[in-house]
Amino acid sequence: MKPARIATVTPVSEESAVGKVVAVYADIKATKKIDFVPNIWRVLATNPDHLELTWTRLKAIMHPEAAGRTSKLDPLMREAIALAVSATNGCAYCVNSHTAALRKLGFDAEAVGEVLAVAALFNSTNALADGYQIEPDVLPPLDG
Amino acid sequence: MKPARIATVTPVSEESAVGKVVAVYADIKATKKIDFVPNIWRVLATNPDHLELTWTRLKAIMHPEAAGRTSKLDPLMREAIALAVSATNGCAYCVNSHTAALRKLGFDAEAVGEVLAVAALFNSTNALADGYQIEPDVLPPLDG
Amino acid sequence: MKPARIATVTPVSEESAVGKVVAVYADIKATKKIDFVPNIWRVLATNPDHLELTWTRLKAIMHPEAAGRTSKLDPLMREAIALAVSATNGCAYCVNSHTAALRKLGFDAEAVGEVLAVAALFNSTNALADGYQIEPDVLPPLDG
Amino acid sequence: MKPARIATVTPVSEESAVGKVVAVYADIKATKKIDFVPNIWRVLATNPDHLELTWTRLKAIMHPEAAGRTSKLDPLMREAIALAVSATNGCAYCVNSHTAALRKLGFDAEAVGEVLAVAALFNSTNALADGYQIEPDVLPPLDG
Amino acid sequence: MKPARIATVTPVSEESAVGKVVAVYADIKATKKIDFVPNIWRVLATNPDHLELTWTRLKAIMHPEAAGRTSKLDPLMREAIALAVSATNGCAYCVNSHTAALRKLGFDAEAVGEVLAVAALFNSTNALADGYQIEPDVLPPLDG
Amino acid sequence: MKPARIATVTPVSEESAVGKVVAVYADIKATKKIDFVPNIWRVLATNPDHLELTWTRLKAIMHPEAAGRTSKLDPLMREAIALAVSATNGCAYCVNSHTAALRKLGFDAEAVGEVLAVAALFNSTNALADGYQIEPDVLPPLDG
Repeated sequence: MKPARIATVTPVSEESAVGKVVAVYADIKATKKIDFVPNIWRVLATNPDHLELTWTRLKAIMHPEAAGRTSKLDPLMREAIALAVSATNGCAYCVNSHTAALRKLGFDAEAVGEVLAVAALFNSTNALADGYQIEPDVLPPLDG
Repeated sequence: MKPARIATVTPVSEESAVGKVVAVYADIKATKKIDFVPNIWRVLATNPDHLELTWTRLKAIMHPEAAGRTSKLDPLMREAIALAVSATNGCAYCVNSHTAALRKLGFDAEAVGEVLAVAALFNSTNALADGYQIEPDVLPPLDG
Repeated sequence: MKPARIATVTPVSEESAVGKVVAVYADIKATKKIDFVPNIWRVLATNPDHLELTWTRLKAIMHPEAAGRTSKLDPLMREAIALAVSATNGCAYCVNSHTAALRKLGFDAEAVGEVLAVAALFNSTNALADGYQIEPDVLPPLDG
Repeated sequence: MKPARIATVTPVSEESAVGKVVAVYADIKATKKIDFVPNIWRVLATNPDHLELTWTRLKAIMHPEAAGRTSKLDPLMREAIALAVSATNGCAYCVNSHTAALRKLGFDAEAVGEVLAVAALFNSTNALADGYQIEPDVLPPLDG
Repeated sequence: MKPARIATVTPVSEESAVGKVVAVYADIKATKKIDFVPNIWRVLATNPDHLELTWTRLKAIMHPEAAGRTSKLDPLMREAIALAVSATNGCAYCVNSHTAALRKLGFDAEAVGEVLAVAALFNSTNALADGYQIEPDVLPPLDG
Repeated sequence: MKPARIATVTPVSEESAVGKVVAVYADIKATKKIDFVPNIWRVLATNPDHLELTWTRLKAIMHPEAAGRTSKLDPLMREAIALAVSATNGCAYCVNSHTAALRKLGFDAEAVGEVLAVAALFNSTNALADGYQIEPDVLPPLDG
């Protein structure tokens, strides 16, 4: 049976995965503790190298402990940034996915609203600072 | 003496401020605990109503306690979102200002790098999800 | 019968076209070697001057030989750029249309994936270069 | 003498212009009633076809009467839109140029501030509507 | 009955509104002279403070007379800017809403086309000016 | 001596590099066949993990042969996409860097102009398709 239309290319189902795609799919499910492969990974699998590169990087940045490293950001802050960037870019898939992640981590609708309030505020002031071409303030240097 | 060029309009110096601009300038300095008025506010003061509207909103969202409300986000998360949005939009003034704010709150260059790593990652996956027109995953509904 | 909703304005069908719209529709079908007028042109036809201006420009840039000029880019490169820009801006209509064009020119899903991998990579590094406000490298001058 | 660095390519000075560039430069100065060729046109002239295509389109849209057509927008509205879009995209050259055009048409700093206030407001609500993935309201249909 | 899916959070219906949400909903309907609360406000109401902040600002900028202030822009110019910004950001909700507002104010499809023609033109020249990194023209200073 | 200001953080010079930064710097110079480390890598080195992740990915996508893989895109097409995306996002560092790369690969100013003409065209039509909320054309399905 042909998979339902979810993208401009036909996604690679878990059953039809071969080669490095199999290992990446398994790692995604284990790392994220979920029992399905989200659409974005099944679509990226149409170019297996790119799937692997994207997953390796997302794992290292968003699941640092699973990638054997440490991060100074906690999961809530990372997902809040993810939602703010996705709202700024207007990405439907990403907004849905990162709102769900924030909810899983305990944020209720009001807290999601605070994240979007901050994102919206700075989309606004970014347009003002750029729209007036305002020069940066002269501040004491930051070291390191 | 004419102020140095910092924008497409001539900023309103603290000395020449009149009317509601005086009160907003004072509130900015008191709320942010700084002894100067940053460029963006001096530029916005060329339209006093807009200065007041922008400041009122920024104060409520970024300094909730000073505005008599509570927020479920802490200052670090708010500034991290601010930097991520400003990096996404490429706003020079804002990137400088929010990097400085994160440094003041204790983030070193490595931690700033983690914020930008997350922002960069999702600028990348946003382009992929949109570039393939990937449909959102069907997830269990979130309530509230 | 009222046309199906495809936009915020009612598109101009081929049957109801008059004046310069008729000629532009005919030129679009002849130049693109297709037997229908894509939605974007039928929508733009609600302002006939703008239809003509947009088509004239697109024809000159994307179909240079038909416009009596030469281009140093080949059709694949032009469509790859079109998809990359459309992915960056998150434009659903455009992503669908340029993916189809790349497929017609012989790109399979893996090659489309390489185009999007490059686009995604630079959406990422753009956010980093802007997010750190990195100055351009000092390089030897380029002439011409 | 080598022209000062104003772009990634060497602009075409009025003295060194040949072929169709000469005619476009003359038309720009006559249409805009200015006695110099702005940087953007001198840079575009490094690809004469593209210079001509861009100018022809800008002239038709921004100087409709000079292009023998009529527009339902007046010059102030057109320049206000131009500044709002340029602020949204953060384009330094364009913000400077369209602020100057608005000032020439009689807008003072306060009125420029209103234009940017509207632009900033909708950069904010765009991020909110996209950040929540809000569906359009069901409204009575618009005809024509 | 559960409301239909219109966003990533469950909107607050007029019947279930409490506290400051009630007053904001009433003010929205009175100020906009409509008999329903548009989706964006019902979604923002999941964070009542943010609803109030966003509405207060939108009212002051888009309905200045109702907010007891004057603006140098007329309603048509404000809505034209709103549509141009929303088209630039690709916001579906906002494009629908501001096209409807322009139609209510008397713009037909051809006039809406002129607004989008200007917006599209400057999205194009913004990419050119930034893509060549063109320096601003040296113009006589603007005062005030 | 303190390095010149080139970013919001102090870049890591080649002399002061330690640990994995040393190896990445060496690989950058060998892979790109250059004798200096460009600013972006020296800035990213303030977070060594992120430096390594970003370089690994850029190497795999932009220098596939050096990463032991093959790509269906040639270097010119990859750099053209890079410039088009960077122009769309208005990234100064990136525009300079990718224009230089295209020039090294043999593109003259006229050919760079064609790349930017295509990028500008689709920034324009993206705004139109989004500004009218145009639905994708119904096309025959693409397989694979």
